[in-house]
Amino acid sequence: MSRGADPKATSCTRFSTAEATAETRDAGKLREKILTMETLNPHVKAVEYAVRGPIVIKAGDIERRLQQGVKQPFTEVIKANIGDAHAMGQQPITFLRQVVALCCFPELLDSPAFPDDAKQRAQRILQGCGGHSLGSYSASQGVECIRQDIAAYIEQRDQGIPADWNNIYLTTGASDGIMSILKLLVSGQGSSRTGVMIPIPQYPLYSAAISELEAVQINYYLDEANCWALDIGELRRAYRAAKQHCQPRVLCIINPGNPTGQVQSKKCIEEVLHFAYEENLFVMSDEVYQDNVYSPDCQFHSFKKVLYEMGPEYSSSVELASFHSTSKGYTGECGFRGGYMEILNMDPEVKAQLVKLLSVRLCPPVSGQAAMDVIVNPPRRHEASYTQFTKEKNSVLGALAEKAKMTEQILNSVPGMKCNPVQGAMYAFPQIFIPPRAVQEALSVAPDMLYCLKLLEETGICVVPGSGFGQQEGTYHFRMTILPSAEKLKVLLEKVRDFHLRFLQEYSPQEAPVRRTSQEHSET
Amino acid sequence: MSRGADPKATSCTRFSTAEATAETRDAGKLREKILTMETLNPHVKAVEYAVRGPIVIKAGDIERRLQQGVKQPFTEVIKANIGDAHAMGQQPITFLRQVVALCCFPELLDSPAFPDDAKQRAQRILQGCGGHSLGSYSASQGVECIRQDIAAYIEQRDQGIPADWNNIYLTTGASDGIMSILKLLVSGQGSSRTGVMIPIPQYPLYSAAISELEAVQINYYLDEANCWALDIGELRRAYRAAKQHCQPRVLCIINPGNPTGQVQSKKCIEEVLHFAYEENLFVMSDEVYQDNVYSPDCQFHSFKKVLYEMGPEYSSSVELASFHSTSKGYTGECGFRGGYMEILNMDPEVKAQLVKLLSVRLCPPVSGQAAMDVIVNPPRRHEASYTQFTKEKNSVLGALAEKAKMTEQILNSVPGMKCNPVQGAMYAFPQIFIPPRAVQEALSVAPDMLYCLKLLEETGICVVPGSGFGQQEGTYHFRMTILPSAEKLKVLLEKVRDFHLRFLQEYSPQEAPVRRTSQEHSET
Repeated sequence: MSRGADPKATSCTRFSTAEATAETRDAGKLREKILTMETLNPHVKAVEYAVRGPIVIKAGDIERRLQQGVKQPFTEVIKANIGDAHAMGQQPITFLRQVVALCCFPELLDSPAFPDDAKQRAQRILQGCGGHSLGSYSASQGVECIRQDIAAYIEQRDQGIPADWNNIYLTTGASDGIMSILKLLVSGQGSSRTGVMIPIPQYPLYSAAISELEAVQINYYLDEANCWALDIGELRRAYRAAKQHCQPRVLCIINPGNPTGQVQSKKCIEEVLHFAYEENLFVMSDEVYQDNVYSPDCQFHSFKKVLYEMGPEYSSSVELASFHSTSKGYTGECGFRGGYMEILNMDPEVKAQLVKLLSVRLCPPVSGQAAMDVIVNPPRRHEASYTQFTKEKNSVLGALAEKAKMTEQILNSVPGMKCNPVQGAMYAFPQIFIPPRAVQEALSVAPDMLYCLKLLEETGICVVPGSGFGQQEGTYHFRMTILPSAEKLKVLLEKVRDFHLRFLQEYSPQEAPVRRTSQEHSET
Repeated sequence: MSRGADPKATSCTRFSTAEATAETRDAGKLREKILTMETLNPHVKAVEYAVRGPIVIKAGDIERRLQQGVKQPFTEVIKANIGDAHAMGQQPITFLRQVVALCCFPELLDSPAFPDDAKQRAQRILQGCGGHSLGSYSASQGVECIRQDIAAYIEQRDQGIPADWNNIYLTTGASDGIMSILKLLVSGQGSSRTGVMIPIPQYPLYSAAISELEAVQINYYLDEANCWALDIGELRRAYRAAKQHCQPRVLCIINPGNPTGQVQSKKCIEEVLHFAYEENLFVMSDEVYQDNVYSPDCQFHSFKKVLYEMGPEYSSSVELASFHSTSKGYTGECGFRGGYMEILNMDPEVKAQLVKLLSVRLCPPVSGQAAMDVIVNPPRRHEASYTQFTKEKNSVLGALAEKAKMTEQILNSVPGMKCNPVQGAMYAFPQIFIPPRAVQEALSVAPDMLYCLKLLEETGICVVPGSGFGQQEGTYHFRMTILPSAEKLKVLLEKVRDFHLRFLQEYSPQEAPVRRTSQEHSET
């Protein structure tokens, strides 16, 4: 692949371009690239990320063709593949944007168009920035006063359980934090290689990170028949099986669930933490949907709070990193790439290593840090922006709750489709019946990929096949967001229903579609 | 390290917290952590990043003590360790901040306080964002119209040599882009493991990334006696030596140099590209200081332009990634974490793999992308903001040029210190004579670390030891930024001079300090 050292090279200390060009013209034509699929880092090759995978690339192509005037059986592509609220028309929270704009252009601090509480927040943030500018690098862990605000927020959220701002690290979205912590934890070779337990279905950042870091992925299956609950017996099964070929050291939890939308009960979290304590597992709790709980009988419990309530034996020993983000909740500020992690019980020397690792990337985007600050320190009852802020927040969350309900209802009205309640997060993950003939036809692609491709081609609706998240063998799903406006979402769901009926018709003309046919698979 | 499977565990499917707490109380006390220095990812452990290393942590401690009222022989800590312009008092470019603030809070588009050209820029950027919001994820490669603006900028910069926006990728600062490209390139085991050629002295992101990715670092030494020029013979030597134990596949260049401040001549760039062509090396050219050229007899030439001027044999085959950033130049917007890379001649399949890899992190911060857009698409001659923009830009660059000169002059007036001209970038990297007695005393730390620690403790000035960047054995340096205001920089340099004289006195009372004593080392 390399041409190796050229014997001419040694004598040619100073070369002439023209001469060299003539000499290498023929060689040039035969040159192989240095970076090819053969020489590419194999761990990069192994990475898969369905949320922006082949189907989304295809959706982009179709969108471009539409723009160029190419006729399609629909007038727009609806990207229900990714939790990208603003792209679906959700409006930013005014107060958040006011604060960030003030930080960005402090001359506005003199403008009467901005409320005092927003100005005070901005001034406080700027005081924490080098040279009072959003343009300075922050400390690698983030702006100090923002870390303090986050700790205060966590304390309040967890009903007074103390939070130390020294344990808070700002991140570039939650993904960056998750990647950094996993990076620390991967070591060993062969059967002592780090195993990482992840839920199936999972958010594919986890499997992608595990591939990239060459860790061992340990699947524990969520219980679809039981609203995607986490079953402790299944955790034990997965752990024991994995112990044979790797060293399980990390347990990842997504609560509320992505793509599955379940909200874990306090009892379940206790069991998980007890299990992690027993088996010496580092717990990573992805809690980016902590503000997205819709079912009236569900409540968000942070892993940290539950850990503390289990007593000092647990709270002083279980190593826990929990993650939050500006991208979800009621703000949906994905583009700012803001987030934080709280890390408990980490060895102080390792903590120094983490800070060192983070310092190589210098700091998370400071405007994202500012956005995070507004989320953890929103207007208070007596402040000028309180009323508008509360109205906007409730409006977003109220609409999401209604859309969660509507999505579940419409999908469950479709023969051959079964959707668990969307208790939280922003996604429905219905199980779909795919007729055997379609399964046979799929061949080179996963049957649910075939399904989603056809859905896209026929309706312009872009969703992600369940195979991108993982699912019990023989079951098929897709993930769709509940983010389009209620009217649009209703149309979308009706289109999905009509498509599904056509699909069933096409592939099983003789066979009457039976509701929940494949549900048994996940009940085993 | 792991307690292993607990025999109780199997029977205890549903556990009681109180019971478990009592049972494990004693075990709890003896628990070992999961993540310790022993189990930490060894590649993370191997990472070093001097720019925010031990001396900067110490500077932070001293700063905190000062704030608490603890007396020190100085009244403030001056952080000349990092190219963080705003933290050193540089003011943001008004136009840039106006555009980003408008994007952030589009209600301001109706405000008469903002000029029309800024509004037009903001509207164009928002048109490119999903839902016309900075809060949407962009495509993994960045906002399309920003990529187009970048391509247009490169074309203009390179006197018409075409740039294709499909080759442009927005990044989270340049560091993120550099890391991503290196990640692709690392493969092979043993003597076929990827070797990465880096200049010595280097910016330690490179060595850190190489450690993290477990690639092989190949040092080529810049010629200190010749203004830190890159010598092609030295490249060949380093390549040949490395060939014995690894597969050199990547050649990294920093131009203008960091920490060394040299600006490469066109001839030198031609030689480097010819060498890369000959030896089949992927070229990574770090050009984040392309706007920071101060010497009247120097000019920035992009690797891309030179490659094209060498003719199609080269321009159609040499694989090249070049990097730019919002953090340097005349804007110094580090906190926005904006940047881009242009990638030439990459295998299309590998490109798809790159996009897949980037998509896992979703997108670079969109506000940073907006900042990057302003840099590549500044006000034009006929536009409202042109005069103020040009004044501000010239003021920053003019001041930097003066400070570059002053720094070189004052440092060269100090006996036992020798500083090459600061032709570009933002740093001086003087060689310092360290008396043998001080070298002996240093023992467990590098002698220049001892020097910098003492400088910090005695004067409050924080600079980074040369050992953090790499240097010829037996030579000692430090890197300092030229970013403080001219008045402050002058005081700082005088303090450095006085400290250096005291240091020489302390460690070599009998020996008259001889100017350039250790210079010979780098002339070998």
